[in-house]
Amino acid sequence: MKQIIEQLTSIPVAIISGIISMLFVFYLSIKVTKSDYGDEKMQTISSLIRKGSIAFLTREYKTISYFLVVLFVILFFGVAKKTAIAFVIGALCSMLAGVIGMNISTLSSSRTAKKCESSFNDALGIAFPGGAVMGLSVVGLGLLGLGLVYFGFILFLTNYGSSVFEAVKEATSMIVGFSMGASSIALFARVGGGIYTKAADVGADLVGKVEKGIPEDDPRNPAVIADNVGDMVGDCAGMGADLYESYIGAIVSGLVIAVFNLNDVKSAMLCLLIASVGIFSSIIGVFFVKTNKEEDPQITLNKGLTASMIIFVIGTFLLSKFWYNNLKVFWSIISGLFAGMVVGFVAQYYTSGRTVKQIAEQAKTGPATAIIEGTAVGMISTLIPLISIALATIIAYKLQGVFGIALSALGMLALTGTTVAIDAYGPIADNAAGIAEMAHMGQEVRKRAERLDAVGNTTAAVGKGFAIGSAALTALALFSAYGETVGLSNIGINILDARVITGMFIGCVMPFFLISKTLQAVGRAAYSIVEEVRRQFKEIPGLLEGKALPDSARCVDITTQAALKKMIIPGVSAIILPALVGIVLGKESLGGFLAGSLITGVPLAIYLANSGGAWDNAKKYIEEGNLGGKGSDTHKASVVGDTVGDPFKDTSGPSLNILLKLMSVVALVFGGLIISINQWLIKILPFLG
Amino acid sequence: MKQIIEQLTSIPVAIISGIISMLFVFYLSIKVTKSDYGDEKMQTISSLIRKGSIAFLTREYKTISYFLVVLFVILFFGVAKKTAIAFVIGALCSMLAGVIGMNISTLSSSRTAKKCESSFNDALGIAFPGGAVMGLSVVGLGLLGLGLVYFGFILFLTNYGSSVFEAVKEATSMIVGFSMGASSIALFARVGGGIYTKAADVGADLVGKVEKGIPEDDPRNPAVIADNVGDMVGDCAGMGADLYESYIGAIVSGLVIAVFNLNDVKSAMLCLLIASVGIFSSIIGVFFVKTNKEEDPQITLNKGLTASMIIFVIGTFLLSKFWYNNLKVFWSIISGLFAGMVVGFVAQYYTSGRTVKQIAEQAKTGPATAIIEGTAVGMISTLIPLISIALATIIAYKLQGVFGIALSALGMLALTGTTVAIDAYGPIADNAAGIAEMAHMGQEVRKRAERLDAVGNTTAAVGKGFAIGSAALTALALFSAYGETVGLSNIGINILDARVITGMFIGCVMPFFLISKTLQAVGRAAYSIVEEVRRQFKEIPGLLEGKALPDSARCVDITTQAALKKMIIPGVSAIILPALVGIVLGKESLGGFLAGSLITGVPLAIYLANSGGAWDNAKKYIEEGNLGGKGSDTHKASVVGDTVGDPFKDTSGPSLNILLKLMSVVALVFGGLIISINQWLIKILPFLG
Repeated sequence: MKQIIEQLTSIPVAIISGIISMLFVFYLSIKVTKSDYGDEKMQTISSLIRKGSIAFLTREYKTISYFLVVLFVILFFGVAKKTAIAFVIGALCSMLAGVIGMNISTLSSSRTAKKCESSFNDALGIAFPGGAVMGLSVVGLGLLGLGLVYFGFILFLTNYGSSVFEAVKEATSMIVGFSMGASSIALFARVGGGIYTKAADVGADLVGKVEKGIPEDDPRNPAVIADNVGDMVGDCAGMGADLYESYIGAIVSGLVIAVFNLNDVKSAMLCLLIASVGIFSSIIGVFFVKTNKEEDPQITLNKGLTASMIIFVIGTFLLSKFWYNNLKVFWSIISGLFAGMVVGFVAQYYTSGRTVKQIAEQAKTGPATAIIEGTAVGMISTLIPLISIALATIIAYKLQGVFGIALSALGMLALTGTTVAIDAYGPIADNAAGIAEMAHMGQEVRKRAERLDAVGNTTAAVGKGFAIGSAALTALALFSAYGETVGLSNIGINILDARVITGMFIGCVMPFFLISKTLQAVGRAAYSIVEEVRRQFKEIPGLLEGKALPDSARCVDITTQAALKKMIIPGVSAIILPALVGIVLGKESLGGFLAGSLITGVPLAIYLANSGGAWDNAKKYIEEGNLGGKGSDTHKASVVGDTVGDPFKDTSGPSLNILLKLMSVVALVFGGLIISINQWLIKILPFLG
Repeated sequence: MKQIIEQLTSIPVAIISGIISMLFVFYLSIKVTKSDYGDEKMQTISSLIRKGSIAFLTREYKTISYFLVVLFVILFFGVAKKTAIAFVIGALCSMLAGVIGMNISTLSSSRTAKKCESSFNDALGIAFPGGAVMGLSVVGLGLLGLGLVYFGFILFLTNYGSSVFEAVKEATSMIVGFSMGASSIALFARVGGGIYTKAADVGADLVGKVEKGIPEDDPRNPAVIADNVGDMVGDCAGMGADLYESYIGAIVSGLVIAVFNLNDVKSAMLCLLIASVGIFSSIIGVFFVKTNKEEDPQITLNKGLTASMIIFVIGTFLLSKFWYNNLKVFWSIISGLFAGMVVGFVAQYYTSGRTVKQIAEQAKTGPATAIIEGTAVGMISTLIPLISIALATIIAYKLQGVFGIALSALGMLALTGTTVAIDAYGPIADNAAGIAEMAHMGQEVRKRAERLDAVGNTTAAVGKGFAIGSAALTALALFSAYGETVGLSNIGINILDARVITGMFIGCVMPFFLISKTLQAVGRAAYSIVEEVRRQFKEIPGLLEGKALPDSARCVDITTQAALKKMIIPGVSAIILPALVGIVLGKESLGGFLAGSLITGVPLAIYLANSGGAWDNAKKYIEEGNLGGKGSDTHKASVVGDTVGDPFKDTSGPSLNILLKLMSVVALVFGGLIISINQWLIKILPFLG
């Protein structure tokens, strides 16, 4: 007993790690905000972007909140009160992280542009801390919130007479609600933000670059502000919510499996300690992002990532050897880390070098052959990642059973703080470059800002690799937890059982459904933007000559409305459909459903990410002056590829990761309820049995 | 005993049905060949196409034969002598059907063009019987060959002392080789033919229509003959081999499950009788394809399909009720038939009407938005088909267990004779229109030939629906048979087992791999054609003015080489990879591998087919004069969509159906061998265990 209580001290450790992370966020925020915010022109532009971003986020959260209330009521009365409470807190922490992160990000971009006037390193000294605020808020609030709720539940339950182990068990089954809150926000934020950013981007490019031949970020283009807002709400806030839920999902699946499969509290505590080690590694990594030379910002960012990674590996090694006394868990973590890196490096391989040249070459015969080649590249790029995920699965399983799989996922995600920081740095630098262009800040400044923006894809690719790989493993771990809680782990979920196969056939289309809905939303919203921009160029006299201002607020408004409207169906379906399958066809079919969606979702996510990346880089390769360079027919063909790839890689692809986990969590949380309704239904309609 | 022998008389019934089918083929061939073959100009063109087609088929078969020899040896020494013999006969019957069908098809097209001079009905009276030769050869030779081999094996084994039931059991396990022979030829023929036809098509269009602005089938275009050859070797011979293997696969999986799951000879005989009923229904259907008016050929073809279907439903009803004495089998068959039709009608919905208009509308903002919209359409179009396949699975299973699933598949495929006839009619009419254009046969003739060619997509869509739906169900039935033979049917193939999940993660990328390889092959071969055509227009003086002849043989040669070279890797991988997974990771992983590939393959096949169809029709919709009509920017954007869709729907998509079945058959045939090697390997490398 005393031993268990001693073990529980790991929860306060996690809470304190979260608090330290948030204190560091506070420090970084002050560092950013006290920096010079530039002249009036820069302020005007920056505040337009900021206003648009905040307006979108507010409306997005408002829309989501209706949905949260409904789910809260169902959870509260249908599942368990504590689950409902955990759900809401999980969701609120995600929102709060989004608000804090985006607030600082929007403040960072004009300041970064201003710093570009003095030196490259100064600018980096604003842009990266700006991104790190998002990164550390995500992990800090995540671990803090989760730790507090978990600890609170356990204390409450032991006060009401449960034994400590019973209390931990019950608290663990409730804490799944926290993960569900995170996943719900993430899906809406990723889909809504993703639609927003790509609709604005595609719309702005189609008229601006293609039809009118004006440069990117040209202030005459009415959709440019919307495009910059999109970077913030999609690539920054949306991405943050996405990784917040991955992070929470990995920890929670570890807790559930430790407690329910292994009946072991110490293993559960291990998960929280790994997360704490991850936070400290991320914080220390921030200090390594510094440079005195005008070197490739890629190298500088890599320093941060490498430093974090080394510290994390050493930390988990020590933790495994001396605290947990079992090095097998260390190797499980490493197998995940390694698989994630393979996914990332394969992504890098297929979105650079020879493959990209091949796509550019095929663009010589027009957009069709470029699209065909890019599709082929994306599809083949799924091969090695899936094999490496498969190997990580089997290795981790052989080492530590299902818990090993959960540890693998956790290994990939413990450094979320660093990867989000690097990811969020992107839109800040992008916006800084945009502001520099729109405020006519001069050649030198513009060039520095663009160099900041031109971070290669390496770090981002590794981050994406972790996101996809961990999604696969987390969903798998949650899926095993589902099997455990609905009592299928002994009988197994047998593919030769027609009920399971039926579920798989239905589940496998869910990713296709989500991709379709999000692509269509981007295509149609972009179409509205194109029409609006064309209208403004026609109806506002002197716009193209730069003598009149565009009505950029109108474009922001159109995109906001479209994104919010179109995020609802995908978000709601992800929750309703698995429940429906379980209710009508039973728990075996629901198991098949989850496996089916996982099996199609993971390769589709990789395909979309890498096709998109490859088209993007093929276009860049041509823009560097190859095969005729900018303005040539080959270039135009490559722009078509890039435009198709935009929603592939930044809207539909990332949404898939969340879908897989959200559906597993829904099955896990509602499992009991679903089975009861199913059994009641079979009594009324016996042919369903 | 006497009863069993009585039951076995169903095999001679099947053999006789096959013979009758072939006699009817002979009658139709005479009818076609004695018709007038037109003037010298037509003959020259027609013989160029014919020569190209036969040259390709010969070289294709030669390439495949090396591969057949290797497999024959492995089967002969590694599995069983009789399996090897069945394998070769199954492959040879497929090749023979291809030769007969394509021989008559190439003879039919110039005769159809000639008949267009007199009347529409006369032309139809050549084109459809021409296609029916292919259709009835496929089912006739299939059932004849299968029946003879099966009967021969049983007789041989009973002569050597086995009891009749033992003999049937052993013969059934050997006859799987026949199915493997069919699948092997099919994959190569579909992939090779598919690459050929689309590379030539895309190549011819890109330079001809897009760059030079000359019409389709213009004799000045050096790639036009290759394009017409492609119709023959891809859409005619490739498609025939594809459906031959589906047909055989469905019958064989029925036999295996009847004998091994049910231990019942009568159920096995039922499968052969259903196939016989199908053949008679198809033959009678041919007589209904007649018209006296210049009506839409669609309606005329539909008459044939509807007649066949009604006769088939009545026939199987009588068979189930009075011969098998169990109407449950009838409803299993109907569930499959119904699911196939749903897949077909959904395809039709998403490739016509509102959806197509939406794509055309999105083409107004350029090719990128058209591609995005078409991708979205294709992806969402997987939803209802998969649900209906899932429902057919569960219904058939509840009625008759796994045997019900096999019957469902058989229900979809019994009318293969009719569907292949209708499918093969397409390239004949297409070629006739081409010959009419190239031989300058005048406005009226050309118009009639084009009307023949312009059959709507209804019948083709239904046929494709049957092909995809039956592939899913046949693969599923074969998969169950695999589980049975390797001794997994009691323990089950449990998704919660990490070995199974590992197999699923690897299996799920196989369809992506095949799509990638085939798309890339088409893209690159088309690129070579484009370069060659551009070269000829530049280097041959007077070509564009129509004063000089193009070197069309060169284009035929380039495409042939590319297609043959590129079909090897996909074909060989489909056989080696499942074996490798089984050998290295064991039978559970191989089970997961098959399920994984099935679960991604089916929706991907539907997505590719429907995206391709939708883009095609969006282009046609614009060409009818909507949204600016031919030559407008919107039209150009829609041509890009169509070009991307061509290999989607005619190369990669159909190849997937075969892949799924081929891999299941490989697992089934080599199951025992694979397990032995795996166990030997574990002894050497214990960590694999």
